[in-house]
Order: sequence, then structure tokens, then C-alpha cells
Amino acid sequence: MAETPSIPKGTRDFSPLEMAGRNHIFDTIRTIFKVHGFLPIETPAMENLSSLLGKYGDEGDKLLFKILNSGDFKAKLSPDELTKIPAPRLGTMISGKGLRYDLTVPFARYVVQHLNEISFPFKRYQVQPVWRADRPQRGRYREFYQCDVDVIGSNSLLNELEMIQIIDEVFDALGLKVVIKLNNRKLLAGVSEVIGAPEKMTDITVAIDKLEKIGMEGVMAELKQKGLNGDSTGKLKPLLEMEGGTGEKLAFLEGFLQGSATGRAGLGEVNTLLEYTGAASVTAEIEFDLTLARGLNYYTGSIIEVKSAEADIGSICGGGRYDDLTGIFGLEGVSGVGVSFGADRIYDVLLQLERFPERGALDTRLLFVNFGDTEVKHIIPILDHLRKSGIASELYPDQVKMKKQMNYANNRKIPFVALVGAEEIREGVVTLKEMESGQQERLTPDQLVARLSSAK
Amino acid sequence: MAETPSIPKGTRDFSPLEMAGRNHIFDTIRTIFKVHGFLPIETPAMENLSSLLGKYGDEGDKLLFKILNSGDFKAKLSPDELTKIPAPRLGTMISGKGLRYDLTVPFARYVVQHLNEISFPFKRYQVQPVWRADRPQRGRYREFYQCDVDVIGSNSLLNELEMIQIIDEVFDALGLKVVIKLNNRKLLAGVSEVIGAPEKMTDITVAIDKLEKIGMEGVMAELKQKGLNGDSTGKLKPLLEMEGGTGEKLAFLEGFLQGSATGRAGLGEVNTLLEYTGAASVTAEIEFDLTLARGLNYYTGSIIEVKSAEADIGSICGGGRYDDLTGIFGLEGVSGVGVSFGADRIYDVLLQLERFPERGALDTRLLFVNFGDTEVKHIIPILDHLRKSGIASELYPDQVKMKKQMNYANNRKIPFVALVGAEEIREGVVTLKEMESGQQERLTPDQLVARLSSAK
Repeated sequence: MAETPSIPKGTRDFSPLEMAGRNHIFDTIRTIFKVHGFLPIETPAMENLSSLLGKYGDEGDKLLFKILNSGDFKAKLSPDELTKIPAPRLGTMISGKGLRYDLTVPFARYVVQHLNEISFPFKRYQVQPVWRADRPQRGRYREFYQCDVDVIGSNSLLNELEMIQIIDEVFDALGLKVVIKLNNRKLLAGVSEVIGAPEKMTDITVAIDKLEKIGMEGVMAELKQKGLNGDSTGKLKPLLEMEGGTGEKLAFLEGFLQGSATGRAGLGEVNTLLEYTGAASVTAEIEFDLTLARGLNYYTGSIIEVKSAEADIGSICGGGRYDDLTGIFGLEGVSGVGVSFGADRIYDVLLQLERFPERGALDTRLLFVNFGDTEVKHIIPILDHLRKSGIASELYPDQVKMKKQMNYANNRKIPFVALVGAEEIREGVVTLKEMESGQQERLTPDQLVARLSSAK
Repeated sequence: MAETPSIPKGTRDFSPLEMAGRNHIFDTIRTIFKVHGFLPIETPAMENLSSLLGKYGDEGDKLLFKILNSGDFKAKLSPDELTKIPAPRLGTMISGKGLRYDLTVPFARYVVQHLNEISFPFKRYQVQPVWRADRPQRGRYREFYQCDVDVIGSNSLLNELEMIQIIDEVFDALGLKVVIKLNNRKLLAGVSEVIGAPEKMTDITVAIDKLEKIGMEGVMAELKQKGLNGDSTGKLKPLLEMEGGTGEKLAFLEGFLQGSATGRAGLGEVNTLLEYTGAASVTAEIEFDLTLARGLNYYTGSIIEVKSAEADIGSICGGGRYDDLTGIFGLEGVSGVGVSFGADRIYDVLLQLERFPERGALDTRLLFVNFGDTEVKHIIPILDHLRKSGIASELYPDQVKMKKQMNYANNRKIPFVALVGAEEIREGVVTLKEMESGQQERLTPDQLVARLSSAK
């Protein structure tokens, strides 16, 4: 019993100060989702294991947290089965449920299950924790929040615009400068077609992505090793030598992709989207990046990724367009576009750059010092008046030494204390002390409300 | 694949309309917690099973959801152990973690683990889901939210007052009439002392509680069966015949409990607390109820329970004072008082009495009809202006038939649509249509913002 308790590795407690920072992020994100007309849903922490297995590849299956069946979980298993079936398979036989691994599969399941209630296009957001049995390390947790926003049932590029606007508004509201990187899978498909290796799209993308690290020769060697012939790599070379900003790159691709209908379609999409973002007042830098390839097996059109322009921390938001969200649950043809905000990394950036607001609006503004029961009874209605005026305030509950009460105010960073003694009761006032300056003033309860409402 | 997916029994999806209702409850509760100076914490969904086992009795242990260890969970078990150890014990050998069952044990664990960071009295709130492998039935779920608020490290009855004020303010803000029932364990201990059966407190309380159902004779029979002698039951009888309101009952107890110091202390606490609630402007009815005994093994002083005065649905909030929160984790002497709001039952009452507000403040107010790309480019900056003024608005993403777009507005209950055609573009206006009345008006973008900001 004397041992200090602990929590499972890779999980975290959030103390009040961390909660304030996290709520600042979640509230900002939710407010912007809402002003764009997105609707919230929530799904259970536990899904049937059958809904999760096989959706994230073999590696993903291993990272699912399985929930042991209640009651006699081994009743239907023979001794032979119990001892001989290997752990992974036996695990799924004694566990019917698992913790959700992301918000995408539960969303797909939700859409199929609630099809009759939904009016399309369906604009939904979902902010909930997910769990992965990953090896914990710095910045990687076994329980973390995802903030997903998607529009499904519409192919319009106006939805991509909306995702970019949301990204722009969220990071602007959080006071973070970001670069929004943009690509389109159709361009990558077009490039592979043009160089005569349409089936090698993934290899080509992976290799292009390494250009900065391993140089032109390294990329060429890797592509040869992946089976590309000299004709293909030769055709690819000018693309790798492509230079300049978004405009120059797109102009170059205009010529390069002439021979591919898919490539031309991708280029059309990128150009239209950039036209839209030009018409909207997007303040973040938008950078076209042909090497951006996140979730290549999943996305079918636009690919979006956001990086901090100020801190080196990897992707803090990303997503794209997919053609078939719900196919895994038997419903074909539901396409959409969505992005996911990484709350933990955004928290780390805000902390590192010291961009969190000083204090939440509802943190305690005032502490009444407790001098005893007579004073307390005088204070109770004043305190009530303050709170009903929206001013977060407290009365120290115990009649203890002044020093202890002031320590509490200091530790909690409460900016004002109120002193009410016999004299104040007689005169119907409160002595208000500003902790930082030490200045005191005498105020009626109404003046007190006015003073604290206006004080920073 | 063709089978419709489902979710584990006892769990729920929350669709946008339910989310709006639930967020209304959570936001109301959180706002009032904050204005009283309470601070939020969150703990992980998974706790080490050793932190949970034995804390909720044998029945509770059975209701814990256990999480199967990752990797080869049976590597260290011999075939004999795997086959012969009964499921409950084997379960804890292959599962090191479990889902939290309530918020109290994780809070106690948190306090012990973070002792150095906390300044006492510690006023914390926590709003998170909990999981229990209970048999699902109407109104009982395997995943549900608890909203707990506690002050620890202070013995002052001002904390009990604060709990009652919070309860009063929450239900007032939600538009629900409630009765707050109040009792004190010391009174029940005093009663058992006075009648000469101090060790039978629980039996006596349980029997008293059945008075209305089984009558005086039934209660007497039950107490005899529990081992009370004729002398004790005879002394108890006048108490069971006690009539009247809170004042009369307390006056009667004044005499009845003369012989018990504990009883007199309890009476003193109840009287002081009622004096405090009199000084504060508590609007809910407060009813002293000697039969109130929730969590009798846990609470050591005040006991609080809240019932709807309008709907017959059982307890919707409850709690009390405890002397030893953290003893289970080896830290003695941390006392406190707290209550827990039952969000699911509150939701049911609000739904039944139709007390949910019509619409959330941030639901979509306006839909722009999509007539094509030229119009869209004109609309984009206007839409941006509206959103940045805090007016939730949307542009239908696809250029489809007017009827389909209007259906979307109807289904989503969007009160206004905006029409922008060639004429509007020329004149720099927007035609605003109010869906309910069908009335149309032509407005500049600034007039549009003003109109929608003022419209109900």
C-alpha cells in the first residue's frame, strides 16, 4: 500500500495548467468548425474488434488494444486451443471488443449505420481520444486526441477550399505561423504514366521525397533498384531538376504532364483550388509540393499537410480527399475530404513558442479572506452576486492564518483578494487588494463587480 | 462485408442533435464549476489494474473492463496455468490494465501522485466517460459520462454550501426544478448509539428507508431479524413516527439525540449548513431526509442527493463528505466533499420535459445557394466576412438543382438562404430569404452581417 501509484506507460494525467492549454486548443478548433457549419458526433471508445481488424494493415492490428470478454472468457475454448493457438489469434478469440485506433474507421462505421439520418453533404467533426499500443517515446503516446473534420458526399473542390480556410483560421486564432503544403495524387499518377511506369507510383514518390537527403544519383540508384528502366529514370530527371516556387512548378508540370489525362486533371484541380484560395483571404503561405505523399494508399485527389513555419516539429495537421470512405463496411461510393489536427503536437509548439494566452477568462479573479463566521455570513451574498455576474471568485473555506490564505492566492495566481472585517461590514464595503501592486481600495459590492469586470 | 456494422451492446453513438443536448449540459456544468474557482483535470482511460482491483468490492471487480496485454500475453504462463486457473484470476494475469470505473479512484490516485504540485484546499472538477461491464438496460450503459466536482483538504462546511450552490445554479441554468435532499451520517450513527445498537447503523438505515413501502410493522420485523432487541426497536419507534418538515424533524432530533455526542455534532453540522444556505440565495428546495443513506460506507458527514421535482427518474446528482479519499493509495488524512452529476439522466429529464434550448448559438444561420463558378467566386469573400463576424454560414459545395439545395437547408434547419445571381453581383448585394416566412430582402454584405447578428 505504501508504494506510490502510477499510470500505464504512454498515458498521461493532465493537471489544471495543461488542461487550460489543451482546452484553449480544442475550444479554438471547435469554434471554427462550428462557424463553418460542421456538426459534432461522438462514437464509443470501444468498437467491435471485427470493425477494427484488417483496417490498418498487419502492423495496425498489432497496435490495437483488445478488451478481454467479461465473465468466463475461456469457457468455449478447449485446453488444446488455449495452449496451442498463438497469442495474436487467441487474443481475438477471447476479446470481442477493442479501443478505437483512429476516428476515421468509427466515422465510416457511423455513416453506414446512420445512413438514414444523414443529409448529404455531411459536414462532421469529431474530437476524441484514440489508443494505440505503440512503443511510447518522446511525443508519442498510447492515448492521444484526434480532431477530425470531414465533408462527405460532395466532389466539389470548394470543400478542399473550406479545409484550407479552416486550417488558416485555426492557426491564425492560435497565433501560429504555418505553411500549408498541397499536392494531388493525380499528379503523381500522371508522372508515373508519363515516364512509362504507372504501376511504380509509390516507389517513385518515395524516391522523389528523398531527393534533398540522398541527391540525384541516390534517387536514380534507388529507382533502378525498384525496377525502373533507364528510359523511365531519364524522363523523370528534368522533373527532379524542376526549380522555383509554386507558380513555376505548376507551369513546368503543364508541359510535363501533357501526355496524361489523369495528370492534366490533377493539375486542373490544383489550379482551381489555388484560384479559390486566392479569392478567399487565406493568410497562411500555401506551397505546392509534388513530394507530399502522406497516406498515398488512401487519398485519391488533394493531399494537404501543415507545418509550423517557426518550430521544427513535423506535421501538425494533415489530410486529403478519398474516394471510398465506407467501402470497408460494404457501402460503396461515399467520397469526401477531411483533415485531422494533431492536438498534442500543436500543444508542444504553443508551449515551445510561448504562445499560450496568459490566463483563461474564467480562472479565479478574486479570493475572499476568511476572518470567521460573522464575516463569512456577510460575504456569502456578495460572493453570490459576483459569481452571477460571471466573475470567478472564491472564499477561503477555513479560518486559518492570513499567511496561509495569501499563500493559496499566490499559488493559484489569483490577482485580487478581498478583505471584509468589522469596519467593512459596518460601512457596507469590501477592501480590495491587488496582489501584484499591493494597492488597496474600498468598494461597494456593485463597484466591486464593475471593477473586476473591467480589470485585465 | 455486406453485413451492417454495429457497436458493442451498452454503448452509443451520439449524433449531432444528441451532441447539442449533451454539450448544453456539459457546458452549463463546466461554466458553473469554473465561476466557483474549480480547476479541471483529466486522467487516462486506462489505469493499471492494480489501482482499480479491490476498490469497488467483489461485484465491482467483476464489472471492470480488462485490457489484454499487448504482444505475447501468455508467454509466461504454463499450459497448466492457462487451462486450470479460473477465468477471473487468469484475466488479471494476462491484463495489466483496465478501463476506469469511476472518477473517484483515479482522482485519489492523481492526488497521491501529484501531491507536490497541488495547493490545498484543492478544488477540482473532472468530466470524462467511465466504463462498467454491467448488464445493459434502459437508462444503464456500459460507457457513460460522470461530472465530478470535489474540494479536498478542508473540513469547513462552507464547502458543503458551495456544493449546494453549484447544484442550485446548474439546475437553475438548465431550467429544471429540483429538490436537494440532505442528511448526515453522524445523525445515523447517533441514532444507533441512542437506541443502544451502534454496530447496526447500516441495518437501521436500510430499514428506516423502507418505512413508506413496508410500514412500521415491516420495519420492526426486519430490525428484529437483523438482531435488534425489543429495547432498541422500542426506542427507535418515536423516530419513525416523526412527522413534519425539515424544521420539525430537526427539532425532534434535538431531543432524541441528546445522549450522543456524535449525533449532536451531526445536528450542529446540518443546522450550520442550513444557516449558510439561508444566507446564500439558494432557490431550490432543500429537504432534510434522515433516510438518505447513499454510499453510507464511504461518506462520513454530509450526504447530498438531488431529485427532479417534475420527473420521476431517481437521483440526478449526489455526493457527500468523506474522511479518507486517498487511504487506498497509502496517503492518510485527505478529507473532502464532492458531488457527481449524472449527465445521462439529466439529458433524459431535459428531453422528457422538453427543456432543451431551441438551437445552439453556433448552428448554421445561412446557406448560400450555389449557382456556379462565377457566382461562387463572388460569394467566397462575403462568406469569409460572415464567418469572421461569428455567423455560422455555409456555401452549398455542388452546383446542383435548387430543390436539392433547399432540401439541404430544410433538413439542417438553416433559417436563411442567400441567393447571388448576375444581377446581385452587378449591384453588389445579396438576396436574403427567410425560410419560414419566405420573405426576401436585398442587402449589402455589411447589412447582411448586421441583419443576421440581430435576427433571432
